Amino acid sequence: MDKKQVASCLAEAQHHLNQELLPFWLNRCMDKKNGGFITQFDKDGNDTGEDVKSLIAQARCTYTFASAHRAGFGEGKCAEFARHGVNYLLDVMWDKQHEGFYWTTNRAGEVLIDKKILYGQSFAIYALSEYTLATGDPRGLETAQRLFELIQIHCTDTMYGGYFEMFERNWELCLPGPSGGDRKTLDVHMHLMEAFTALYEASGRQVHRRKLLEDIALLNERILHPQYRTGIPQFRADWSVAPQIKFDIVWGWDRFTDGQQKANPTDNTAYGHNVEFVWLLLHAMDILEMPVGNYEDTIRKALMHTIENGIDRKFGGVFVEGPHTGGVYDREKEFWQQAEVLIGMLEAVLRFGPDPFWQTYYNVHRFVFDKVIHHEIGEWWPLLTREGQPIWTHMSHSWKINYHTIRAMIQCIQRLEKIQGSI
Amino acid sequence: MDKKQVASCLAEAQHHLNQELLPFWLNRCMDKKNGGFITQFDKDGNDTGEDVKSLIAQARCTYTFASAHRAGFGEGKCAEFARHGVNYLLDVMWDKQHEGFYWTTNRAGEVLIDKKILYGQSFAIYALSEYTLATGDPRGLETAQRLFELIQIHCTDTMYGGYFEMFERNWELCLPGPSGGDRKTLDVHMHLMEAFTALYEASGRQVHRRKLLEDIALLNERILHPQYRTGIPQFRADWSVAPQIKFDIVWGWDRFTDGQQKANPTDNTAYGHNVEFVWLLLHAMDILEMPVGNYEDTIRKALMHTIENGIDRKFGGVFVEGPHTGGVYDREKEFWQQAEVLIGMLEAVLRFGPDPFWQTYYNVHRFVFDKVIHHEIGEWWPLLTREGQPIWTHMSHSWKINYHTIRAMIQCIQRLEKIQGSI
Repeated sequence: MDKKQVASCLAEAQHHLNQELLPFWLNRCMDKKNGGFITQFDKDGNDTGEDVKSLIAQARCTYTFASAHRAGFGEGKCAEFARHGVNYLLDVMWDKQHEGFYWTTNRAGEVLIDKKILYGQSFAIYALSEYTLATGDPRGLETAQRLFELIQIHCTDTMYGGYFEMFERNWELCLPGPSGGDRKTLDVHMHLMEAFTALYEASGRQVHRRKLLEDIALLNERILHPQYRTGIPQFRADWSVAPQIKFDIVWGWDRFTDGQQKANPTDNTAYGHNVEFVWLLLHAMDILEMPVGNYEDTIRKALMHTIENGIDRKFGGVFVEGPHTGGVYDREKEFWQQAEVLIGMLEAVLRFGPDPFWQTYYNVHRFVFDKVIHHEIGEWWPLLTREGQPIWTHMSHSWKINYHTIRAMIQCIQRLEKIQGSI
Repeated sequence: MDKKQVASCLAEAQHHLNQELLPFWLNRCMDKKNGGFITQFDKDGNDTGEDVKSLIAQARCTYTFASAHRAGFGEGKCAEFARHGVNYLLDVMWDKQHEGFYWTTNRAGEVLIDKKILYGQSFAIYALSEYTLATGDPRGLETAQRLFELIQIHCTDTMYGGYFEMFERNWELCLPGPSGGDRKTLDVHMHLMEAFTALYEASGRQVHRRKLLEDIALLNERILHPQYRTGIPQFRADWSVAPQIKFDIVWGWDRFTDGQQKANPTDNTAYGHNVEFVWLLLHAMDILEMPVGNYEDTIRKALMHTIENGIDRKFGGVFVEGPHTGGVYDREKEFWQQAEVLIGMLEAVLRFGPDPFWQTYYNVHRFVFDKVIHHEIGEWWPLLTREGQPIWTHMSHSWKINYHTIRAMIQCIQRLEKIQGSI
């Protein structure tokens, strides 16, 4: 980790964010006619015309612009875009009868899927809290607080702890099985940590702090593998490990190549998810002003599991997933896992020193800047072969938006600047 | 169980309710000057002047009059009294800033203790729901539903399940230890079952049904002794059994004769509580329209534990408490335990046949009518020696009101009439 290498990584990240990523989005995503954002672009950055606006995409895009503004990027334009996103969320996607946010509308704003999906609600809390932190407009925090209340009223499991995740429009629990009413996931409980951290940062309220602490305890004691401290994707209500199935309402684009169930449905962990968990947990502890002490062992284990199993030393970058005990099932490269590992490794450098985290960062950094970023257009290829050839080629759709990419650049720039100042 | 004995018990109960209990209360408890109820009366039924109105006493009194009206007693007067109680709850005891009900006011309505104690909130839900069921006035159910929401927002433990119980005025959790912020109790979780049953009966809403079912599961899987199916009084947040301590905010008048801790702090169960649990659970299953199947073993074990250990075959009535494994620690007689065993044994007669439940009922019935009821005045002695001599002699105070006594007579009359019709 020499000063020159850090400086060149920082320069690359700044250039990519300011000259490629932000222009990509600021030039094409605002829907001036119907409000909200257009989030479907093909490999050339052209609108595919797909007629849907998803809660995730609208909320993530709003978060992204708010956080970019708060971090000092965009010269005011990002605040304007964030406000445009909040307006759509509050005016169109909010269910005025049953409260909470619908899952999808069409571009004109007519509701397509009216279910209340906790994954999406959690991103709405994240976005609305970040928006108030960035702009001071109280509407964000007000709605985030109400949504937090609705989640406490309707989603908690007061028998086994944690949250149910899939609800009908009126917040009645969905059926079990593919409807997901009987499942609890790493994904949702991790993103609730992210959301409650931002909510507590914005509100300072004890009830938000307490529920954040309870969720952190759940993640550590129920959701991480007791030995390897890697994330287990799916559980039954009683926290027994459940075979990983595909839900009717898809929120990511996890690939179930063999149908509705993964090849290794109960022994799967995603490297990028584990490192994302690590840096989100460390950020939460900072906002809580609590020492990391109790979690340091977990954090080191999770980081080392990815470094030892998930990093491709031949072609660079992060593999998709593998078993908890070590090894790899899937050697392709998903864009978001690269993004999260970038942030997590720099955070580890700051907390624990450069070795072996800087080398890992630099490996993934080179893979991202040399292979994953479609520099000509400005966004990242969503899925690549192990060697770095694009498999999927869209620049954006409902589940791939600017949240991972812009957030990674903002968070990495902040950490690279700190590292630069320290050597 | 012959027809004549049933008829004479029924006649005694009807006479006591109509000629003694209801007149006792209707003639003295309404506070026409300040609203709400006066609930402090000495052994002669004279107002002691104690300057306090407690949430428990106001809510329980309101419940009692509402339920008496709904059951056809009082010729309309009880509805008027219930409305008078609801007015005080909503106008004076409701915290307009932080919502929820204060713990105590003085008679004039000035707040004395502003804490939010879940035990009291649960009785408010019970009373307000029963009030709407009895009168159709929607104000009761509206406030009960909002209170249910506040409890879900502020009191649940999303890590271990169940509810925390002691909160400051602004719903921040109280400190651990005697302030009770780290404890979970049988008492509160049982009375939440009672409250959520009435709430669901009044609202028919799925979220109320789901939280009721979760609470029933908690009671059965966390709170009842795994082998004896007797109630364990106190737990830590993680449901490990906690030594039974006295809280700063006292809601019952459990006696801690050796100071702040019981002589057998981790091996104590109260016979009347266990039978109260049984009939409240059976009532909940009726309202849920669910078969009792899974719980029949629990119900029979809990009933038999009381019958085998808690019934005084020499002097009659129910002892106070003893160890889970059998035997008795405390042979005095508390009024409320007699009341709850009366109802529970009649319920058992209807579900499982007369033997050994009718004999037990009749034992306790005789002790109540011969020793516990202060017929001359109309209410029950609160605490008696094993032989039936009054130890404490007040007819009412903040924690001893008409909830157990009038409810027992109403519930017993309804069941005795059914039994009479069946033989």
